[in-house]
Amino acid sequence: MAELSESSGATSNRRDFVRAGIGLGAAGVAAFGAIDKLLAEGVSAPSKPIVKPGDVVLFQGDSITDAGRKRGIDAPNDEAALGTGYAWLAASQMLVDKPEAGLKIFNRGVSGNKVYQLAERWKAECLDLTPNVLSILIGVNDYWHKHKHGYDGTLEKYEGDYRALIKQTKETLPEVRLILCEPFTLKVGSVDDSWFPEFDGYREAAKRVAKDVGAAWVPFQTMFDAAVKVAPPETWAKDGVHPTPSGAALMAHWWLKAAGP
Amino acid sequence: MAELSESSGATSNRRDFVRAGIGLGAAGVAAFGAIDKLLAEGVSAPSKPIVKPGDVVLFQGDSITDAGRKRGIDAPNDEAALGTGYAWLAASQMLVDKPEAGLKIFNRGVSGNKVYQLAERWKAECLDLTPNVLSILIGVNDYWHKHKHGYDGTLEKYEGDYRALIKQTKETLPEVRLILCEPFTLKVGSVDDSWFPEFDGYREAAKRVAKDVGAAWVPFQTMFDAAVKVAPPETWAKDGVHPTPSGAALMAHWWLKAAGP
Repeated sequence: MAELSESSGATSNRRDFVRAGIGLGAAGVAAFGAIDKLLAEGVSAPSKPIVKPGDVVLFQGDSITDAGRKRGIDAPNDEAALGTGYAWLAASQMLVDKPEAGLKIFNRGVSGNKVYQLAERWKAECLDLTPNVLSILIGVNDYWHKHKHGYDGTLEKYEGDYRALIKQTKETLPEVRLILCEPFTLKVGSVDDSWFPEFDGYREAAKRVAKDVGAAWVPFQTMFDAAVKVAPPETWAKDGVHPTPSGAALMAHWWLKAAGP
Repeated sequence: MAELSESSGATSNRRDFVRAGIGLGAAGVAAFGAIDKLLAEGVSAPSKPIVKPGDVVLFQGDSITDAGRKRGIDAPNDEAALGTGYAWLAASQMLVDKPEAGLKIFNRGVSGNKVYQLAERWKAECLDLTPNVLSILIGVNDYWHKHKHGYDGTLEKYEGDYRALIKQTKETLPEVRLILCEPFTLKVGSVDDSWFPEFDGYREAAKRVAKDVGAAWVPFQTMFDAAVKVAPPETWAKDGVHPTPSGAALMAHWWLKAAGP
């Protein structure tokens, strides 16, 4: 991916990320445990802003991205069409920071979606929008619906379908800049110990895909693992899956950092 | 203020701010209208993180800061005691980003407060907490209660009381790092044309105080002026004064940028 650093190792990667995307002083860098953890995970971080003036930015995913967005609105940057979740909060922060950059931001998350359901609607709701930047958060339903609702998909199907979706996307949009987001849960509400370690496999599969396709990576699970040390899990997601406004604000904060916009 | 740039003019100031606090590439910088406007306002921006490991950070102000916080909790970093507004969102983002930095964050905003009412409770609810970083957002009630509720304070009293409060603070806490926030309104709900231009005087007075005392400045009005081009004012503050979760998330986003944490 052209926008990522041609870094030759973790040290330069870290330096680039800090210089380009975060900009802390030395004391801040030393304290930045979550970033250290991200970089230790071996996924590239952007050395330049991923979102550029004039870009079409598309958020894709399930209910966490959907967040009650209004259907049937074709215009970009429409508040109701962006929902009330992290996609809206990240979008509004970009639009307010750079009102004259001409960004065109869309949300096409659909509640309940698994990765194969993204594929079913991909032409109309991704490729035809010709995004310059494509952000995807998908995976919790691929596990949850199997665990609780009799869905017969497997981890292998999730990863295979995800790779096929990205391959198809890059064939049609070879210049697209990808931001893949880590599926996450908090242990509260619908999420109990019976989810683990199997759910972790879905997170790891998404990370493998991100690394292999050179995508930027938003480590939401890393972030929420830190967040539950600050406030109880229900603060961030009452049912363990769907973020509260506080959880969504935290997601937008990290999405923007990972995207270096 | 030691943490601010010893800049010799707007150009170096801008360079430092971009390098240290925002970190955009050249395209991003060119597009960053709101930051340009901030710097054109002639208020210093931080070249280094204002918030350092181990700091006590105190948010002070009125209902916008209060945001329904729970009373009677002495411990720092307590979710309920931080309320549900921008102070909580900024605090949680700092705590999640730097879980091992040992920050101790307090909110002591009180709904309805004007600047003289901060002064009345300043020893117990500011000085005795010995903040390293003190953030203040005050002023909308100083005007609103005069305009609508018979309060007899003037703009001159607001500015004079504000300067006296900062002077007292610096005498007791000479090393305190100050972040002053612009009072703001959105033209919706309780706020109509009758507020202007008189309310603008309060914003300008706060800015003068910030500049004169070498404080960092969070230009919330500049931000919300950009925000209403993105979505209607009620998206950000239904009554024109008290932010929605979206408005509070935007405030936290800008507070963190201005503070270069």
